[in-house]
Order: sequence, then C-alpha cells, then structure tokens
Amino acid sequence: MANKLWSGRFKQSTNRLVEDFSASIDFDWRLYKEDIMGSIAHCKMLGQCGILSEEEVEKIVDGLIEIQREIERGEFEFDRALEDIHMAIEQRLIEKIGDIGGKLHTARSRNDQIALDLRLYLRNTINSFLKLLHSLKTSIVDLAEQHSETVMPGFTHLQHAQPVVLGHHLMAYYEMFRRDTARLKDCLKRTNVMPLGSAALAGTTFPVDRKITADYLEFPEISRNSIDAVSDRDFVIEFLSAVSLIMLHLSRLSEELVLWSTTEFNFVTISDAFCTGSSIMPQKKNPDVPELIRGKTGRVYGALMSLLTMMKGLPLAYNRDLQEDKEPLFDAIDTAGTCVEIMARLLSELVFDKERLREMAGEGFITATDLADYLVRKNIPFRRAHHITGEIVRYCIEKNRKLEELELNELREFSGAFSEDIFEFIAVESSVSKRESFGGTAPELVKKAIEVAKTELEDEKNQFNL
Amino acid sequence: MANKLWSGRFKQSTNRLVEDFSASIDFDWRLYKEDIMGSIAHCKMLGQCGILSEEEVEKIVDGLIEIQREIERGEFEFDRALEDIHMAIEQRLIEKIGDIGGKLHTARSRNDQIALDLRLYLRNTINSFLKLLHSLKTSIVDLAEQHSETVMPGFTHLQHAQPVVLGHHLMAYYEMFRRDTARLKDCLKRTNVMPLGSAALAGTTFPVDRKITADYLEFPEISRNSIDAVSDRDFVIEFLSAVSLIMLHLSRLSEELVLWSTTEFNFVTISDAFCTGSSIMPQKKNPDVPELIRGKTGRVYGALMSLLTMMKGLPLAYNRDLQEDKEPLFDAIDTAGTCVEIMARLLSELVFDKERLREMAGEGFITATDLADYLVRKNIPFRRAHHITGEIVRYCIEKNRKLEELELNELREFSGAFSEDIFEFIAVESSVSKRESFGGTAPELVKKAIEVAKTELEDEKNQFNL
Amino acid sequence: MANKLWSGRFKQSTNRLVEDFSASIDFDWRLYKEDIMGSIAHCKMLGQCGILSEEEVEKIVDGLIEIQREIERGEFEFDRALEDIHMAIEQRLIEKIGDIGGKLHTARSRNDQIALDLRLYLRNTINSFLKLLHSLKTSIVDLAEQHSETVMPGFTHLQHAQPVVLGHHLMAYYEMFRRDTARLKDCLKRTNVMPLGSAALAGTTFPVDRKITADYLEFPEISRNSIDAVSDRDFVIEFLSAVSLIMLHLSRLSEELVLWSTTEFNFVTISDAFCTGSSIMPQKKNPDVPELIRGKTGRVYGALMSLLTMMKGLPLAYNRDLQEDKEPLFDAIDTAGTCVEIMARLLSELVFDKERLREMAGEGFITATDLADYLVRKNIPFRRAHHITGEIVRYCIEKNRKLEELELNELREFSGAFSEDIFEFIAVESSVSKRESFGGTAPELVKKAIEVAKTELEDEKNQFNL
Amino acid sequence: MANKLWSGRFKQSTNRLVEDFSASIDFDWRLYKEDIMGSIAHCKMLGQCGILSEEEVEKIVDGLIEIQREIERGEFEFDRALEDIHMAIEQRLIEKIGDIGGKLHTARSRNDQIALDLRLYLRNTINSFLKLLHSLKTSIVDLAEQHSETVMPGFTHLQHAQPVVLGHHLMAYYEMFRRDTARLKDCLKRTNVMPLGSAALAGTTFPVDRKITADYLEFPEISRNSIDAVSDRDFVIEFLSAVSLIMLHLSRLSEELVLWSTTEFNFVTISDAFCTGSSIMPQKKNPDVPELIRGKTGRVYGALMSLLTMMKGLPLAYNRDLQEDKEPLFDAIDTAGTCVEIMARLLSELVFDKERLREMAGEGFITATDLADYLVRKNIPFRRAHHITGEIVRYCIEKNRKLEELELNELREFSGAFSEDIFEFIAVESSVSKRESFGGTAPELVKKAIEVAKTELEDEKNQFNL
Repeated sequence: MANKLWSGRFKQSTNRLVEDFSASIDFDWRLYKEDIMGSIAHCKMLGQCGILSEEEVEKIVDGLIEIQREIERGEFEFDRALEDIHMAIEQRLIEKIGDIGGKLHTARSRNDQIALDLRLYLRNTINSFLKLLHSLKTSIVDLAEQHSETVMPGFTHLQHAQPVVLGHHLMAYYEMFRRDTARLKDCLKRTNVMPLGSAALAGTTFPVDRKITADYLEFPEISRNSIDAVSDRDFVIEFLSAVSLIMLHLSRLSEELVLWSTTEFNFVTISDAFCTGSSIMPQKKNPDVPELIRGKTGRVYGALMSLLTMMKGLPLAYNRDLQEDKEPLFDAIDTAGTCVEIMARLLSELVFDKERLREMAGEGFITATDLADYLVRKNIPFRRAHHITGEIVRYCIEKNRKLEELELNELREFSGAFSEDIFEFIAVESSVSKRESFGGTAPELVKKAIEVAKTELEDEKNQFNL
Repeated sequence: MANKLWSGRFKQSTNRLVEDFSASIDFDWRLYKEDIMGSIAHCKMLGQCGILSEEEVEKIVDGLIEIQREIERGEFEFDRALEDIHMAIEQRLIEKIGDIGGKLHTARSRNDQIALDLRLYLRNTINSFLKLLHSLKTSIVDLAEQHSETVMPGFTHLQHAQPVVLGHHLMAYYEMFRRDTARLKDCLKRTNVMPLGSAALAGTTFPVDRKITADYLEFPEISRNSIDAVSDRDFVIEFLSAVSLIMLHLSRLSEELVLWSTTEFNFVTISDAFCTGSSIMPQKKNPDVPELIRGKTGRVYGALMSLLTMMKGLPLAYNRDLQEDKEPLFDAIDTAGTCVEIMARLLSELVFDKERLREMAGEGFITATDLADYLVRKNIPFRRAHHITGEIVRYCIEKNRKLEELELNELREFSGAFSEDIFEFIAVESSVSKRESFGGTAPELVKKAIEVAKTELEDEKNQFNL
Repeated sequence: MANKLWSGRFKQSTNRLVEDFSASIDFDWRLYKEDIMGSIAHCKMLGQCGILSEEEVEKIVDGLIEIQREIERGEFEFDRALEDIHMAIEQRLIEKIGDIGGKLHTARSRNDQIALDLRLYLRNTINSFLKLLHSLKTSIVDLAEQHSETVMPGFTHLQHAQPVVLGHHLMAYYEMFRRDTARLKDCLKRTNVMPLGSAALAGTTFPVDRKITADYLEFPEISRNSIDAVSDRDFVIEFLSAVSLIMLHLSRLSEELVLWSTTEFNFVTISDAFCTGSSIMPQKKNPDVPELIRGKTGRVYGALMSLLTMMKGLPLAYNRDLQEDKEPLFDAIDTAGTCVEIMARLLSELVFDKERLREMAGEGFITATDLADYLVRKNIPFRRAHHITGEIVRYCIEKNRKLEELELNELREFSGAFSEDIFEFIAVESSVSKRESFGGTAPELVKKAIEVAKTELEDEKNQFNL
Repeated sequence: MANKLWSGRFKQSTNRLVEDFSASIDFDWRLYKEDIMGSIAHCKMLGQCGILSEEEVEKIVDGLIEIQREIERGEFEFDRALEDIHMAIEQRLIEKIGDIGGKLHTARSRNDQIALDLRLYLRNTINSFLKLLHSLKTSIVDLAEQHSETVMPGFTHLQHAQPVVLGHHLMAYYEMFRRDTARLKDCLKRTNVMPLGSAALAGTTFPVDRKITADYLEFPEISRNSIDAVSDRDFVIEFLSAVSLIMLHLSRLSEELVLWSTTEFNFVTISDAFCTGSSIMPQKKNPDVPELIRGKTGRVYGALMSLLTMMKGLPLAYNRDLQEDKEPLFDAIDTAGTCVEIMARLLSELVFDKERLREMAGEGFITATDLADYLVRKNIPFRRAHHITGEIVRYCIEKNRKLEELELNELREFSGAFSEDIFEFIAVESSVSKRESFGGTAPELVKKAIEVAKTELEDEKNQFNL
C-alpha cells in the first residue's frame, strides 16, 4: 500500500491482477524523454512564478536529468507497481532528492501531464514522418525521371486503356504522398498546442504562467479550455486518419508491384534483397515486402477504428479509457513509419523491363480512343465516332487483327472519313505524345512535372535541414 | 443494345440483373446540378479553344439548362438502363438537340467527369457543414453565457473531481467544434481542385485549356497528374474522417445529456419537443434525440471504414469499385448534417436546474484538491499534502462527515499547518474562482473565453454572409 | 399532438425536425409483414389466455389482415408522424375497428415487438441466404466439373508455385461458401428465439402464455430473460459478421476474375452480359461486376462496424440507439444477397482458355518442388534437396533455360542422384497427378471431391425443397 | 546468405531492414509448443508411412523434445535472421542432429505448417475462453442469487421504466455470456480441422496419410481442399467476431458499473482493490477497471477490422499478407482474456446499497404501467388506459406529487374505474412480483432462472473437469 502516491484515501491495497491490468508502464515508458522534458519546463516555470525556490528548481531539474541518463543507460527499473511513466519518474525523483521531489507535481495532474507528453511525442513523430515521406517522394521522382519516356499500357479496370509513360504513372504516387505531407502538416497545427496548466480538469489555483512553459517547450499555442485539454484525443485520431491514407496509398503501390512482378505481367524485377524464398518450392522468389505492406494496411485501419470506438460516447473530462490511446498509436507509428522507409528503398532498386512494357502497350486495341478522336477531328460527333470505333474493334476481335494491321479500305467501310494519316495518328508513341493537356502523359509534360517536384523536394530539404 | 452509348464493341447486351446491379442512377442523380454545371463549363471551354463552334456551344448549353429545368420540375425520367447521371443527361441532350449533343463528351471521360461532380458536390457540402457548425457553436456559446457562474461538479472518471462552472464545461464543446471547423477547412483545400481534362486517365489529345474550365467553376487549383486525378478519393475519406470526429464529439455531448436527464443526476430537462414517449409506459419521456445521435455515430464510422476498405490495394487508375464511394458518403453527409442541426436546436431549449447542480457540487469531497493546495502554500511538498488530504478524506468517510464539517482541531490532528482560513479556502465558490490559470474554470476567465468565441463567431458570420 | 399514442404525459408536441429525425417508418416499413404476423399471433394468444374475448380477437385479426392487403395493394399511407411501422399499423387498426384496436397492445411493448419483428425478418433472410449460397455453390461445382483436368499454374504470393487443376482451385471456393452456410445455420439457432412477452423490459402482469405465441410463429425457443430480450442485438451482429465473411470470399474470387481477365493473364473471358464499356475508350470491356462486388465488400464491413460501435457501452435495457440497427442491416442484406446471386450467374457464363492456362502452367520453374521431391526419394534430406534445386533454378535463370530443357549431364553436375526418369517426374501433368494426398490437386481426387459436393448439394436441395 | 534455408536460388542476400521487417519470430515464438507438437506428429506419420525410417523418426522426435526443453528453460536464442518459429526450430534441429533434421520438412510447407500451428493454438485458446466465461457466469449467478429480491429501478433510455429485481438485471448478462459460450463452441468446430498435408497449396507427392497426423493431434476433421487449407483464415476472423461480442457485453456491464458508482447513482461500491486514486485529487477513487475494459473494447474491434481488411481481395493461395493475422489475434486474445478474468473477480467483490436501490425504485412514476394495466383489467382498452395514465402523470408533475400520494377521488376524476385496490396494485413490490410471464422479473421466476443457470454451470464444470 505504502508505495502508491495517491494511496492516502484507500484502506485496501490494489489487487495484483488489477495492478498488472491497469499499469501502462509497459508501453508508456516510450514517453520518458517527453515526460522529463515537460517536467523540467514545468519546474522552471514554477520557479519563475515564485512557486518553487531557485534552489528547489535546481535540485529537481538536476534530478530529472540524472534520471534520464539512468534510463538511457538501461539502469532504470520500470516496475508495474508504479503504474505509469509519470509515477515511476516522480517516485525515483523523491528517492534521489528527498521530499523536495514531491513539489514537482504542484499545479499539475497526470491528466494534463499525459496530454503534454503525448503531444510532444506526436509532434516529433509527425516531423519524422515528414522526413520519411520526403525520402519516399524522392525515390519516386528519381524513378520517374528514369522512365519519363518509357511507354507502358495505362490501365482502367485493370484493362488496357490508353498508353502512358511509366514516369507519369509513378508521379501519380508522388501526388498522393504530397497530399499526405500536407495532411500531416495540418494535423501538426492541431497537435502543437500546450495543455499543461489545465491540471486535473479545472485549471490550477497556483499562480502559474502557462506561456512560460509553452515557450520552454516551443509550443506556438496554448490550450484554451482546461476540460477540453485533458479529455481531447482528436489529434491522435486525426494523425491515425492521415496515416491510414498513407497506408492506403502504399497498399495500392504494393498491389501494383505484386501484379507487375508476376510471370504474366513481368513488368518489373524486385531486387533479391527485398524478397524471400519458399520453404518448400525452391524456385520461388516472393514479393514479400509489398505483400507485407499491403497486409499491414489493415493494422493501421484497425488502430484508427480502435480509437474512434474508444472515444465514442465518453463523458467529459478524463476517463481511464483514454489510456487505451497509446498502444494502437504506437503500433501505427511503428508500422507505417517502417513501411514508408522500406518502400523508399525498395523503389530505388526496382528494374523495369522496358521492352516488355512497350510490347504490352501495343496490345488490347489500346489506341482506339485515338482512332475515335481522329474521327472527331473530321467533324464526326464524339458519340458517333466512339460507336464507329467500337464496331471496328469488334471486327478486329472477330478477325483476330490489331487496329494498326487493318487496311485503309477496311477502315473506310466503317467511315469514309479515314485517310492514310490515321496510321500515324494511332501509333502508340504518337498517342502518348499527343496527350498534352496539363497533367497529361505526354513525355514533355511529365518531365516538367518532375522538375516541379524536384524543386518542391529541394524546398523541403532546406526546410527540414536534410 | 441500341441504347448504351458505349455499345459499339459488344455483341451481347447487358444482363438485366447486371444492369440493376451496376447502375448508379438511383443515388448519383443527386449530382445532377453539379454534372450540368460541369458540362456547361466544359462546353464553353471547348468553344473558347476552337474545338466546338459558337453555335454548337450555344445549342448544347441551352439544352443542358433545359434539362436541369426538367429535372427540377420532376419531369425527367431516371432510367436504370442509362446507368448513371452522366449518361442519362447526355442521352437526353442528344434526344433534344440531335447529333450535336454527341459533341459534348469530346475530350472528356466519365472518369474525370465523376471526379469533378463529386468535388463540386463535396465543396458545397463542406460549406454547408461550416454553416451548420457555426449554428451549433453559437448555441453552445449562448448557453455557456447563461451559465458562466453556474457551479456544478466537474467530473473525471465520472466521479466528482473539482467544482467547475457549467459554462466552462460547455465551452469545452465549443473548442471541439472549433477544431472540426478547422479540419473541414483544411479538407476543403484538398477537395477544391479541378480534375476535368484528365479524361480517362492519360489526358486528352484535344487542345483544351483546363484553366478556363477551372475559372468557370471557381476552382483555385487544377489537378497535376491525370492518372492520380481519376483514381483519387482521398478527399472523400478525409471528409469522412473529419465528420467521424464531429460525430464523436456529438456522441460525448449526447451521452452527457442522457446522463444528466436521468432521475439520478437530474441536472437538466430536455424540452418535450425533443423527446418521445413509450408505447407501454405512460410516464416515460425519453431523451430520444441524444440517444439517436449517439447511435448514429457508428453509422458514420462505418462509412469511413467502407471507403478505407474499398480503396485498399486498388491498382491505378479508375476501377469500378470507386462507384461505391457515393452511397456511404451521401449517407454520412445526411446523417451528420442533421445531427449537427438538431443538436444546435436542442441545446437552445435545455433547462438546467442550477440549484441541483450547486447542491451536487458540494458532494464527494470535491474540494479535497484545494485542501491539499492549501497545505502546499504552507510549504508542505505537494506529494505529502496529497497524502495528508487522502487520510482526512478517509477519516470523513469513516465518520460520515463532509470536509467542511470538520472542526479545526480535527484537521490539526492531521497537520499543524491548518488554521481558520482553511474553511474559506475549501468553499466551493472559492475553489472555482481561484482557478485562474489561463483556460481554467474561474468565472472571469470563462466570461473572457466566451467573449473571444463571440468575436470568432462574428467573424465567421461575415465570412459566410449569414 | 393528438395523434401520438403515447402523448398523454406531454405538454408540448414534437418538433417537426425531430419527428423526421426520429421516425423510422422510412425503412422499418420493410417489416410490415413480420409485424402483422407477430400481432396476429400475439392477439390469438391473448384470446386463448382469456385476456381478450373471442370476438375481440376475431375483429383484430380481420383488421390486421385487411391492413396487410392495403399495404400490398399500395393503398397504405406511411406517415412520418406515426414514427414507425408498429404505430402506423396500430393507428390504422384503431381507425378501422375502433377502440377495440387499442386492446392489441395489451401485454406488449414496442421493445419486445421490434425484437420479434427483426428476428422473424432475419430468420427469413438467413433462409434466403442459404438458398442463394446453394446456387452459388452449384455454379462453382458445375464449373469445377468442367475443369477437373484443366491444368493451370497454382499461385502463392501471386507467383507460379506448383501446377494445379482449375477445378481444384475453384473447389477452394466451394469450401469457403460451405463454411459460410454452416456459420449462417449456427447464427439461425441464436436468431430463432421468441422475445415477445418480455414487454418493456420486465415482463408483463397479464397472464400470458408465451409458448402459445412461439408455437404460432414456429419458434423452437423462447427468450429466458426479459431485460436481455429487449436489449440484445447479438443476432444482428453475428449475422453481419457471417455476411462479412461471405463478402470477403466473394472479394477474393472477384479479384481473381479481374486479374484473370487482364490482357496479361488472359485466362478467362467474362460474358459481355456481365461487362460494361467505356464512355471514352471504344475498345474497353470492363469486368464491372467483379469490381463492384469487390468494392461492396467495404460496405458490408462498414455495416458490421456501425453496429459494433453503436452497441458499445450501452446500459441496459432498450435505448433508442438500437433503432440504428436496421438500416445497416437492411443494406448489408440487399448488398450481399445480390452479390451472391449475381456471382452465381456470372460463373455459369465464364469461358476459360484452357490452352493459355496449360501454357502458363509450364512457366516459372513451376515443377521445381517436384525436382526436389525426386531427390528426396533418392534419400537426400529435403532441406539439401531444396538447396540443390534452388541452385539449378538460378543456373536456369542465368542461362535463360527451363528446367525441362536441361540435359541430364547438366543436372548431374548439381547432384549425382539424377537419372533419366527425372524428366517424366517433373512434367507438369505428372506433377499434378502425383499430388494424391487427401485434399490434393490430383484430378482423381478433385473428381471425388466434386462428387462429395454434389451429394451435399443434393441433400441441401431436399432440405430446402428446391 | 548461407543461413536461409531457401536461399539456393538467390544471388543477393536479404536486406537487413527487410529481414527485421519481414521476420515474424518476435511474435510467432508464441506458437513454439504447437509447432513442435505438430512436427512430432508429422514426423511420426512420415515414419508410419515409410517415408522416414524408424531411426530417423526417433532422432528427430528426440531432437524436437530437447528443443522444446531448451525453449522452456530460456536457453533458446530467437534470431530474427531465422525469420520465423518454424525456421528457427528446423535450423536448430539440423544443428543438433545433423542432416537428418533436414528430412523433417518432407511433404510439408510452411504454408500448411503455420495453418496447423494457428489452429492448434486457437483451439487451446477457445478452450481457455470457455473456462474463463464459466468463471464469469458463475460470478454473475452468485451475485444474482444474493439479489434475487433486491428491488431497483429498471431502465429504458436510462429513464426509470419499471421496477425490477437486481438479480434479474444481472441474469441478463448471464444470457449474453451464455450466447458467447455457444458462439465460441461453434467457432471451435470450424477451427478444429487439420490442414497439414496440404503442403504449399497443391498437396504433396509423398504417400502421406493425413488421418494418422490428425489422430495424433486429436483433430476430428481433415481439411478437404489443399488450396483452401493454406489460404483460409476464416477461423481467426470468426473467433475475433465472437470475441468482439464478448467485449461488447463487457463494455455494457462496465458502463453500468461506472454509472452506478457515481455520487449521483450511488448504487454500488467497487472494492478498493479494483480502483485507483488520482495524482492530484486526494479524494478520488476511480472505477478504473470497468473504464479500462470499456476502453479496450475498441482494441478488439480494431483487431477484427484489421483482419477483415487484410483478407479483402487477396487472390489464392497463400500470400505474405497473411502473416499479419497473428499480432492482432494475439493482442485480442490477451486483451479479452484478461478482461473476462478480471471482471469475474471484480463482480465477486461488489457491494450494492439495497436501501438506495429500493428508494430509487420508487422514483419517476415507475409504476405508471401498472396503473394502466389496472385500467385494462377494468376493461378499458390498453391504448386509452395508457392515455389516461399519461394525463395523471402530467397532473402529478404539475402538482409535484407521486402516483401513490394521490387521493382516490383525484384519480377518479381521470377515470371512474379506479377503486381502493389501485394503491396495492401500484406498489413497487407488487409491481415486481406480478411480472410472472416466463422470463419476467418476479422474484420467484428469477430464482428459478438462477437454478437453471446453476445446473448449466454444473454441467460445464463436469465437461471442463473443473
């Protein structure tokens, strides 16, 4: 009983099973750095506001710094009986510097303390993710640059639709991860808010100055309502939503890599270093990394769903349910962070088979749209031109011919508007290079888009000091 | 067979069951206004770029305007055989103005058309939500203003924690919905991007100018990659995430209203107009509205989960799976929109029982923290002060006494630091008014927070022309 | 005000917006048949127990039958002011037969009434699903029978693994849907329980005999606890879980159909009747049906998540939140039911390209496992045999050779254990026919499995009177 | 490179980051016992079928038994480079007994091996859960027995509805957990199926006898299709669905415990041993355990959602995505298992305040239904009786009176049917004892229900050898 810092009111000590069940130290030790950083800032503020003496501040801060070293040297024993990282550190502080240590928790509650720790931790995490996304986008742009003229079949419904360049296809992913970056930055604004000083839920009776704490911890904003500050986990959920979208994008890219490395597609070779073999089938080389990334998508969605469910219908202010925010969050951070990192590396070692891509770009009547567009230019309304082309395609299927293999006179049976220039018009390369509307697949445009992206990445590099 | 605009290539007509299964007209008719608006802009752009003649443009635009009128007069027949709203309108256009109507779809595909329609629709929706949230926040601030001095028990773990003012508690919800507003605005940035001109996936061979279309439709940005533009539904998912948080907040408020209107709590009376009775128990007056809102939370979460699942692992570019974005989205919009609206009204008719709230604010040793703080001011380290107070509370429980009923000499048996001023210090009103740290519950601060909120709402009002 | 059957206690009438918000008649009209069936059984029981007179019973039952006819003739007006299907029917009954109609609700509450209606409805639904699954399994078995000797590449990680017969691959789906059948039957046991007589939550003071009602409605079991009976929706959630698995299985099959009908795989042709074309690309024939089924998977998962979220943390007994069980349930029923039905039909029109399948079955060193197994038979430990074979595969890749193209002396450089019979051993057909362990792909076994399945289907047919 | 058992075909060794990313040994070590048990059975079967010699079998089995001891003594080093528990054990076996160890994997693949391990593990887990649920149900029945006559307010919409006995309310939870038991048993049937012998996906060419393996491992069934056997995870998802319902039920019970231990309800006291205090508020005693259980519900739902998402759209047969089945499953098992266990103990120490419960049972016009029923017995149609009662309630609210405080002549102004016996009829105890329909709250019925439950529990006890 003796050891619980809040035990004054209790007659009976905590059931051991309950202790294990409710302790969070097994996972919230991850917040030790943030907890100590926050405590130091809090303590210094208490000093500046005359709530603690200079000497007290010095002793406490020194004690905290030593504890951090103990932890980092692996000398700190995390005991479940101490419940959580906050209690573990405070208890150790009192052990080290005596009763004065007990002054640290003045004008503070675990409710605002954990909100602070979590915001500090997530702020760092978001910054790491911005950097990881930077690497991934860089890999994509590098690869796209190598393939700004590599012609491949473009797909809709996984059917050949129109020829595109591979660089253009890859740059679609650049756009996705660019949006992910923007979303994380928006999430950061709402994460980067200082809750300390909200105390249990109502604020504190001590003459604290929360601006000072915020300045020490480099928070641009201070939470405006103490009840909200201790019961809000929006920032965690918003982050998990953003990360779910990152995983969604990675799952699409992974799916394509799995498809493209089948015997049937045979578009790309993934480096041996990113594949594994089979315990039974000696020939197998499996695209394990994209498969695992695709599979891990569900895990991050699950974390989002956990938090949404957990928060549903909770009355204000803090409830112990909120403790369940951390494990799904940490798991999603680890999962998605590694997936982004490993995808960046995997991309940089992909080898595409340009010949195969070009060959398949000629299959499946892929330039039929161009043929229809040709007729439109001869002033046939698009809808009729589309219909005529459809009939030509059916004719080709029946005769087992390709569009470009037809004779002009065969074509003219479908429409008198065809003349010799049709064959140039429906050549694959011409189809690609004619798509010059902004955002289109013409290689010149793709190269420009890559240049823009490179400038954006350069800007990010400066911004992140990479 | 005749009637499918894409049927040229097909030998066999669509199975009737398939027609019903794959048709989206039953729900995408909701986009008719956006579809026509987009078509008009597209058509005018085609004219300006010399792809259509002036006369053709005029005929098509007039035709489209007439079709809109037909729809709004209820004269338009939505036929499932026409698959979707785009085909239904185009078909009708051709019926009305003949073959020229077939020129409208030049340089366009349903893939970029539906992306456009959905973005236009969601842009309007977000703007409506911003206004609905404005009303809700206004209701909250009005109610908070009435209760800026109403003392009530503040809760953590649903246990009495410290006394607060009701206005402060309510303003916690103001903060939540303020963040929701900010999130929707961020989502709007990424929604408000013009995809038309991406065509099927690769851009178009016609000399279009996408800037012109964007200007007609007041889009500040144009999508940068055609493959991404037709396969991206991030904006829908981001919106559903934001709306899930709105529902989460409403579910918490609803839970509190349900609790507070129990016989046991008896804090508040919900207006008869927002309750229903029982088919069997004549005395019942049920808080149906908050219950339903709380229950509908799951529905919006479900819509989010639907979209995340649907998009997982889809290869680029457009796949028919994407059609499944609309029904969950529309349902979430209707559900959440109505919930916000009805909560705003319900709040404005709540009647709180101030006496009951004040009475309960005195229960449960609620000012024990103040008692501990008192000792801290007498230079007892917080951790010890907390422990002493805990023992006093246990003593009170055993003796069935309240803190304020103890004699000074009883208190002094726990610590010599107590003197007569302790009783003033632990009075409920004093407890509340002493919590003057920024964001705290002291009525003066709450009033200031309300003033700030009123200014923010005034600004929004001007911004939205309300 | 006048018209609410529970309005006695209310001073103020329901807000119109609230009326629309809380009314469920827009969707629960679907339960009209079950509601009337349940009311008739209830009324007859009241008669048999002497609570209503014979004459009263007759009048009420006749009235209810007439109302059912009105509904089925489309003459019944569903008015939102009447809230729900129960009130609408009761009100109409009173209109028709006067005050006696007001006796029907004796010893009953809407709480047990809706539980009854929903259980009746779901019981029918499960029976329909069992029949739909029967058709689907029949389609699979028919198709498998056509392909019990069609050799194709078997995949793991979407890489060629070992050759299999297509019939075997298809029968994997038979096993999945067989489990789905079993799960639905288990769910039926827990659905098929009679809740009426639980009244609001506590049972009724009238001397009812619930066994009589159960007999009328052919329920084998009666709910045992009245509080549980009105607050339980386990059966809905269990059904949604089972249906989520059905969709999961359909999504896997759909994914394969999409893959197999690509230009690259080219394994199968989906009938024109199950595909649609493109508004812009005249050559396109898209596998819309499998894509839509795959996309709709998310929708059913979303419904499950809605219900789980909705029920989380609800205190006993009935809460209005429970009203939100119906729309997700109905949507999931409609969605999954149609998907099962349409997949059954689509399968029956698939055309596989046996030559292409056989050709691809020879690609990708697919019989490497057989080569390793050969060595094991020569008493080389499997692990070494696997390693030797791996080296042979690498050698082949470097030399651009297939396994079967190697000379015996080349093979013998890797191991002296090879002799001439190796080539017969690693032939594709031999690889397939040698896999004779129970459950394996050898055609003889597959044919037996198909026979077993046909017997099972025959049994089901008798059971369902098909 | 050297150490991967499948490395023969690879030129380049696995990237270290990939090794860490794809290794599952960090979590699948939990399956070591099942893996070894399965290997022993497989090995013995190989011996009986003449594929291994007796001596080989003996050596391998002895080696495996020794490895199990090494693991259990903590002497086994789990190295990530060994990927997974299967490889780790096989590698160690070869180290210990030499090349013969390499024969163990004959006629087996990791694909069927992991399916076996997981099924064995889950079979044990389900059996543990059945026992845990047994304890929980026993706690409930014990508590219900103590309170079979304790009158309390029954709630609908969290409003006082009708009086019930606490034992009846508690027995509602017995029913829920009884259904959970039944669902887990149904899940067990589909889990308890032997997949080994399916090999990679196609079965094996070795003359194995799967029945022998099944007998060794006590499986009543053998999987019927090898492709299905290695790609099926239905049993995991079905288990997670069942466990989600368990958590749902626990969350409802937890919610009630949180509510009931508020100052306002004050129905129950949770033992100190199951509560914790506050770091700042010395008086606090928080219902942490029910809060945490309620919060952990989201976590288990999240695990279910993870698996559903992961499996969606996966082509057959095994894909590496499937590796992601284990962590969510293990987490859900640990979470739900502990929650059930701790709830069982917590219930056994609850102390209800019978006086308070009885007092509140008289509040809120709770016997108004009885008053209406009284009128029905005087032959007033229920619907009118309900309306009259509603008006009486409104009259009471206006006059601030309780129903039982009205004079007979006051009542008679609403209806001439009232006579003196009305007061006895609407007394709380009478209201409870009159609810004698099967499943109702009359104490006699509740006692009978408890007896039935006790018999059921006794049966389970014998069945589980407890």
